[in-house]
Amino acid sequence: MKKLVSLGELLMRLSCEDALRFSQVNNFKVVYGGSEANVLITAANFGLKTEFLSVLPENDLGKSAINDLRNNNVGLNHIKFDGKRLGLYFLETGAINRPGKIIYDRENSAFSQIEPEWFDWDEIFEDCNWFHWSGITPAISAKAAKVCLHAVEVAKSKGIKISGDLNFRGNLWQYEGANSEGTMTKLVEQSDVLLAGAYACSQFFNIKDFQNNHELSKALQQKFPSLQRIAITNRKELNASHHKWSADMFTGAELLSSTEYDIYPIVDRVGAGDSFMGALIYGLQHFEDQKTLDFATAASCLKHSIVGDFNRVSKEEVLELIEGDGSGRIIR
Amino acid sequence: MKKLVSLGELLMRLSCEDALRFSQVNNFKVVYGGSEANVLITAANFGLKTEFLSVLPENDLGKSAINDLRNNNVGLNHIKFDGKRLGLYFLETGAINRPGKIIYDRENSAFSQIEPEWFDWDEIFEDCNWFHWSGITPAISAKAAKVCLHAVEVAKSKGIKISGDLNFRGNLWQYEGANSEGTMTKLVEQSDVLLAGAYACSQFFNIKDFQNNHELSKALQQKFPSLQRIAITNRKELNASHHKWSADMFTGAELLSSTEYDIYPIVDRVGAGDSFMGALIYGLQHFEDQKTLDFATAASCLKHSIVGDFNRVSKEEVLELIEGDGSGRIIR
Amino acid sequence: MKKLVSLGELLMRLSCEDALRFSQVNNFKVVYGGSEANVLITAANFGLKTEFLSVLPENDLGKSAINDLRNNNVGLNHIKFDGKRLGLYFLETGAINRPGKIIYDRENSAFSQIEPEWFDWDEIFEDCNWFHWSGITPAISAKAAKVCLHAVEVAKSKGIKISGDLNFRGNLWQYEGANSEGTMTKLVEQSDVLLAGAYACSQFFNIKDFQNNHELSKALQQKFPSLQRIAITNRKELNASHHKWSADMFTGAELLSSTEYDIYPIVDRVGAGDSFMGALIYGLQHFEDQKTLDFATAASCLKHSIVGDFNRVSKEEVLELIEGDGSGRIIR
Amino acid sequence: MKKLVSLGELLMRLSCEDALRFSQVNNFKVVYGGSEANVLITAANFGLKTEFLSVLPENDLGKSAINDLRNNNVGLNHIKFDGKRLGLYFLETGAINRPGKIIYDRENSAFSQIEPEWFDWDEIFEDCNWFHWSGITPAISAKAAKVCLHAVEVAKSKGIKISGDLNFRGNLWQYEGANSEGTMTKLVEQSDVLLAGAYACSQFFNIKDFQNNHELSKALQQKFPSLQRIAITNRKELNASHHKWSADMFTGAELLSSTEYDIYPIVDRVGAGDSFMGALIYGLQHFEDQKTLDFATAASCLKHSIVGDFNRVSKEEVLELIEGDGSGRIIR
Amino acid sequence: MKKLVSLGELLMRLSCEDALRFSQVNNFKVVYGGSEANVLITAANFGLKTEFLSVLPENDLGKSAINDLRNNNVGLNHIKFDGKRLGLYFLETGAINRPGKIIYDRENSAFSQIEPEWFDWDEIFEDCNWFHWSGITPAISAKAAKVCLHAVEVAKSKGIKISGDLNFRGNLWQYEGANSEGTMTKLVEQSDVLLAGAYACSQFFNIKDFQNNHELSKALQQKFPSLQRIAITNRKELNASHHKWSADMFTGAELLSSTEYDIYPIVDRVGAGDSFMGALIYGLQHFEDQKTLDFATAASCLKHSIVGDFNRVSKEEVLELIEGDGSGRIIR
Amino acid sequence: MKKLVSLGELLMRLSCEDALRFSQVNNFKVVYGGSEANVLITAANFGLKTEFLSVLPENDLGKSAINDLRNNNVGLNHIKFDGKRLGLYFLETGAINRPGKIIYDRENSAFSQIEPEWFDWDEIFEDCNWFHWSGITPAISAKAAKVCLHAVEVAKSKGIKISGDLNFRGNLWQYEGANSEGTMTKLVEQSDVLLAGAYACSQFFNIKDFQNNHELSKALQQKFPSLQRIAITNRKELNASHHKWSADMFTGAELLSSTEYDIYPIVDRVGAGDSFMGALIYGLQHFEDQKTLDFATAASCLKHSIVGDFNRVSKEEVLELIEGDGSGRIIR
Repeated sequence: MKKLVSLGELLMRLSCEDALRFSQVNNFKVVYGGSEANVLITAANFGLKTEFLSVLPENDLGKSAINDLRNNNVGLNHIKFDGKRLGLYFLETGAINRPGKIIYDRENSAFSQIEPEWFDWDEIFEDCNWFHWSGITPAISAKAAKVCLHAVEVAKSKGIKISGDLNFRGNLWQYEGANSEGTMTKLVEQSDVLLAGAYACSQFFNIKDFQNNHELSKALQQKFPSLQRIAITNRKELNASHHKWSADMFTGAELLSSTEYDIYPIVDRVGAGDSFMGALIYGLQHFEDQKTLDFATAASCLKHSIVGDFNRVSKEEVLELIEGDGSGRIIR
Repeated sequence: MKKLVSLGELLMRLSCEDALRFSQVNNFKVVYGGSEANVLITAANFGLKTEFLSVLPENDLGKSAINDLRNNNVGLNHIKFDGKRLGLYFLETGAINRPGKIIYDRENSAFSQIEPEWFDWDEIFEDCNWFHWSGITPAISAKAAKVCLHAVEVAKSKGIKISGDLNFRGNLWQYEGANSEGTMTKLVEQSDVLLAGAYACSQFFNIKDFQNNHELSKALQQKFPSLQRIAITNRKELNASHHKWSADMFTGAELLSSTEYDIYPIVDRVGAGDSFMGALIYGLQHFEDQKTLDFATAASCLKHSIVGDFNRVSKEEVLELIEGDGSGRIIR
Repeated sequence: MKKLVSLGELLMRLSCEDALRFSQVNNFKVVYGGSEANVLITAANFGLKTEFLSVLPENDLGKSAINDLRNNNVGLNHIKFDGKRLGLYFLETGAINRPGKIIYDRENSAFSQIEPEWFDWDEIFEDCNWFHWSGITPAISAKAAKVCLHAVEVAKSKGIKISGDLNFRGNLWQYEGANSEGTMTKLVEQSDVLLAGAYACSQFFNIKDFQNNHELSKALQQKFPSLQRIAITNRKELNASHHKWSADMFTGAELLSSTEYDIYPIVDRVGAGDSFMGALIYGLQHFEDQKTLDFATAASCLKHSIVGDFNRVSKEEVLELIEGDGSGRIIR
Repeated sequence: MKKLVSLGELLMRLSCEDALRFSQVNNFKVVYGGSEANVLITAANFGLKTEFLSVLPENDLGKSAINDLRNNNVGLNHIKFDGKRLGLYFLETGAINRPGKIIYDRENSAFSQIEPEWFDWDEIFEDCNWFHWSGITPAISAKAAKVCLHAVEVAKSKGIKISGDLNFRGNLWQYEGANSEGTMTKLVEQSDVLLAGAYACSQFFNIKDFQNNHELSKALQQKFPSLQRIAITNRKELNASHHKWSADMFTGAELLSSTEYDIYPIVDRVGAGDSFMGALIYGLQHFEDQKTLDFATAASCLKHSIVGDFNRVSKEEVLELIEGDGSGRIIR
Repeated sequence: MKKLVSLGELLMRLSCEDALRFSQVNNFKVVYGGSEANVLITAANFGLKTEFLSVLPENDLGKSAINDLRNNNVGLNHIKFDGKRLGLYFLETGAINRPGKIIYDRENSAFSQIEPEWFDWDEIFEDCNWFHWSGITPAISAKAAKVCLHAVEVAKSKGIKISGDLNFRGNLWQYEGANSEGTMTKLVEQSDVLLAGAYACSQFFNIKDFQNNHELSKALQQKFPSLQRIAITNRKELNASHHKWSADMFTGAELLSSTEYDIYPIVDRVGAGDSFMGALIYGLQHFEDQKTLDFATAASCLKHSIVGDFNRVSKEEVLELIEGDGSGRIIR
Repeated sequence: MKKLVSLGELLMRLSCEDALRFSQVNNFKVVYGGSEANVLITAANFGLKTEFLSVLPENDLGKSAINDLRNNNVGLNHIKFDGKRLGLYFLETGAINRPGKIIYDRENSAFSQIEPEWFDWDEIFEDCNWFHWSGITPAISAKAAKVCLHAVEVAKSKGIKISGDLNFRGNLWQYEGANSEGTMTKLVEQSDVLLAGAYACSQFFNIKDFQNNHELSKALQQKFPSLQRIAITNRKELNASHHKWSADMFTGAELLSSTEYDIYPIVDRVGAGDSFMGALIYGLQHFEDQKTLDFATAASCLKHSIVGDFNRVSKEEVLELIEGDGSGRIIR
């Protein structure tokens, strides 16, 4: 089996217990996550061979950060331990009509100091058939952007399939010389599969004034002819605990649509988009288009029931949701 | 007051905290439960005199297992302490579209070694007017099946009313010589009241192809003419956290139906059927048929709000739900 | 800025964890609350200057009780430490169709022994433009009723605006010589703003047989012509975890109505009415009528998502709910 | 087997977690205890038949308070449910050189309103061979003192053996007409066995200026000739976590002394004296004097390792400590 | 680097929180452990390459059991997933003079059904220079004994060094045809290094009446001439929370002795002997004899400060304890 | 009363529960602390008026950080909210012979960007009679060093008494242009009272080769003649859970010594030196020299029993320890 490779930062997430606000806690629950790691763990749980490229500080926190990835069969042979600090984020989970809040504390992280020479790209891309990037990595630092572009170029030169997730984050892209449009254009131009969103398209590429996902997809494909599949997730937020969730995928020929899931009461929504992406990558290698879209949507629906950024569901569990009645009946 | 007697295994339940999966926990919450004990505790909380017949290992776990039963006035004068291990089950609670999972670890339990001579049946059935069995007991071991049949026969011979709950469990009935149809037929033939279900009827008795609960009831009564009341609960699982719940009861003459309750977000659904059964037994001794059905349905609706297998509600609380507005308003 | 003053008891709340019943807990979660303190903390979080008048025992519990008030900028310069015990209440949170239960243990509290001479009323009302009372205080003891009336009279004599919340509690008003109708009449007669409810009006003033909030408001204003604004909250309890919540305000000229919020799954409903009152007092000083009503309704909607009696939301968060889409989207 | 009866109040204990101070907690751990209940549970765990006489409020707290007693085989056939509130105490556990702190909140408890007519004394003392009282009960209220004296007199008249524990508490004896010396004199005069202490003897009876436990014992026996055994525990407090613990017993003829135990790090010292008393009562009925003293001292040594007021050790565990090496080796 | 291989059962440990007794808990803390796994994790943390041979049920519990081993670099390439249940043990931690208690529930575990054919012994022993066994494995079942002997024989035939730990457990060796003396003799006869103890020697080999560890060692070596090193740990149990701990090692020529450590207050003593064994194996490959003994004693001293069966200390931390002052000063 | 002012950083401390290692936790306990804040809270609890100067990020974490200071009466009128992040440190508590570990993550904190113009020094030093600094502040950044020196100079110019704590931290003093000897010399030269230590003196000032605290004190005073009192704490670490603790104070004329406390089992040692310093400042204003030293030593002894960096003991509790028997007897 050929492997899926991705490059990204892994953050420690410190979250308030239950529905408590930051001002009420004397305890933080600890998990780890990051968009690209979230994609890989999803794919690894479905059976893909994966490899995660990252930089972590060489202390007990950096070492602990990858335990869950290791236990879920994500390859960790190229983790670089260097630099001072692990990026963090603090999460206050929303409830009912009160939105969740995230406070990022990731500046000057070990990952932001990443250098291309720290990685043996030939070894990394041996037996690799897919590279995935997200728009968060080039937004962290000039060095991270450089390494991300480098990885995409090397992968492209080796004929490896490339996917990306736009993942616009307004509070990043703050480093000196940051050029989000230019950088993202270079990344998307070399990609075969893209997870996009209306807001990200307007922010990055000034693509606006489309009526629906079909038009948006066509506009994207016109601008980036290499894109063979464009996926868009649709989240309707009734309140912080109750969402409706579906997705569309443009195949070049047509726009396919998934079932819409009614999701309540939400356990943890962080990482849902990433679990969609991981399942999409798996699906495109194993299923035809409509089943791929259904599989990715169901996998990310299930993510909302899992504590932490990482999706912890098996292929069988996703298929049961697609084929079954979604009844959540106890399995004895 | 005459007493209600039942015979069954008590298990330790080890459940994951909150919505965590088995792979995430470093802690199990501990409660105890078992179908027949669940029936008795429900009835005892409504005011019936009860007696629980069971076998437990003579160690600290076996002794602790019955504390909650004792504190809820279930009679424990005939518990036999013998054998090596307490049966266990591990529970991962479902959430949203992710089903709950149960891992049983009950083989070779103390209860499975049960012998009829360990019990003084004459003393047990003195001042007893009702014996209840469930289809789980004869499914555990040949010895358990033998004792269950013995108990029903002795009770029958003493003119005691008998109720049963089919409770089909596909992962039991594994012992050498197990004959589920033959055993269940003997048990139901001697019973006056039965809690049935479509799936169990097809599995045990090959009763299929009925259109509705009315037809199913009639088919059952035809096969088992001793049955005076047949109850069927209806669970519609919208997702793992949201069910609709109602019940029907066949009186021989007609099929009565209860209100349908909309139950969300579910706290703990384990034992809901048993709490229905316990309330049904109480109701049939105190109320007319429709009120009995309403009472049992409301009692089991409330069970979904209680942590653990045991229902912990009073008769007054159930009656308030029937008579009131189900508003859940705070009682000060 | 002129300050808002209120007088009331602060209680320790001991609540069961999660959905556990009293018989299941070996742990109580501790927060503090009381109708008037709840009003003040809400207003203080919006930016009003506030002062809380109360009596607490001079022990570690009494001292700890006011920490959260202090941390939320409620003025505590006139707290009197005297007497023996802190009033308590025990809370079993309801779930689904099972109502919550409260056991009060507040008799003979330090507050119930309150004396008017313990407070320097001139200093208290310096730079004060609003005094708020609730119907709980005069219901506690003859002494508390006396001090409450005294405070209202002094405030009135100084031209300070006065608001009240009827807050009928059937289990109070037990002291010798208690005269709820007479006392409440005197309090309301001197008030400018009132938070009322149908049940309280019938219990206190025998005002019945009105068809709707408009009629009730007119009846109240006829009886108490000093009332310039009468607010009424409307809670529809679908079950203990799901309510609909809206409010009306009578301006003398017309009855304004708010949006209705669909609130589920409820985190903590205690203190929602008080958070409405605190936001109403803030609104009446900063907004026109309709926005005031919308602001108070949204603030109290948000309270249902906060653990504890105290509302912990900012003015900005409330305005976002009014102006936004209530989507509960994560704020990064 | 004849039974041991005692009369006393049961309190809810709300304690801070770990080494936290009152100002740091947002959680209280809940157990129940009271000197006389502590004595009975100890004796019941050794195999004595026991009966607890008490008054509890008829609410969920009062009902929950006796669960542990029931589960440890303390007889509860004469509990009276009446009155409003359960007595409470709040505990901040000490650590190292920081003393523990207790805040009592037991005034006006259900027990303090006790009436002699609530109990059927003839039935209570049927098949009873021992009545135990402690100096806490007559210190609570005039009514409690009256019932305590009544119980001792009835027991005496029936030839039942009587033991007492002086248990001086400076913060009690506050009720109108309290006469500690007179009341205690009447109680001790009718007793056969007494657990005494130097400070209590000086406070109650002005017995001072003795050099050692032998002299104190002789002085006590001179004043109260009915006393056949006088026990005195010796606690040397090195710090809040490390005590030395031994005891003496005067037989009329001589002063016997126990081993001294070195106890650290203490888990929970509350109720250690009561567990000594319960073991003494058991021992005096089953062992000769020296073994009785050794048994009671070892039982109370073990109490320091048990969370909560109640001692939860078996006779076998105590005997192993006496006979063994105190090594605390794991029992597999 | 050549690897260390061992074969053994991995158990789930369910332990009471804090100092609570079995009758008090409604929660169990979960860790995993087993003598041979404990040895391997210790050695892996020091830098040895390791491989664990075991059988686990193919369910979520079996899969979770090895997560910590994987995260501590124990090789898991030959784990066999087969059979029904994971062996369990319940632990009540002792305190002060109260001994800890263990309730085993490991009969019929997946491991007990082990078959030699499930393992590719040639692949397992490739690049292996050390095989370790413990006396627990052959005590579990006839099949386990057979596989253990088989492994030792194959290893011996390949010239691999062999160590063993007698580990006598009175409650095992219960299977039909169990012959502890014969089996153990065959195992020790083929071993180079042995961890022994006085009690185990008397139980297994009837070696008694020696005066000290030197004599015991000589007797053992006389009986088993292949033994090049015999280690004996010395635990003096002052109470359940305070031990003194040292060890001796016989080199054939002389008996070396380690420092004695004063260990209090003990965090978790389970697995201390195994951590000694793992460090001994490491030491014998890296240090001279006295340093090896000091290293193993210090490593196992540190184990008493670690929660769970597994030792989680680095080589550097052990060396600092040997070379430093044991002051436990904070490392910043 | 005149006030005590200090300037320093406040950090969030994230600590492992119980004795768990970093690799074992999925939860961090949260408290806040910092050397200077620790000094102020100690002094405030004894009754001094205090004012804390610091910089915190204007987010929910920065605001929550000062809650405990506010609740313990530390003045917060000059806190500056500015900058991006709160400094953090992660704590793994040691146990027995395993040392504690701290991982700092405080670079680029809001405090490190401090500017002198952010503070109104005249207002700050109005009604101030004491300024305290610690060697941590000038070690953080060039800006922090500049503000610290500025504060000392302004205070000196206003005739305010100045104390300092050398507090050498090898992992700080990393900023460009850092000159620890020069900076510290300027700070100490202007100080009246100093808390010193042997290691800090050798690191900062190359003062070595003294035989005892007396000689060290004399050498310090010779170098810094302004010093009127020099205090030195003596910590003997038997293991991570058991220390001996005493202190000396040089008055210019003589070296006074305190009692030595035997401290075990330690609850939390972080901040013990700071609590000594806070008590010393209080003592020097209220007691003669020997009592001051005894008071400061006892206060810091008690700190070891308190969870968190902050000491939470009253003046009365410290005096009881000095005057009493240190028995840790429960206060009822």
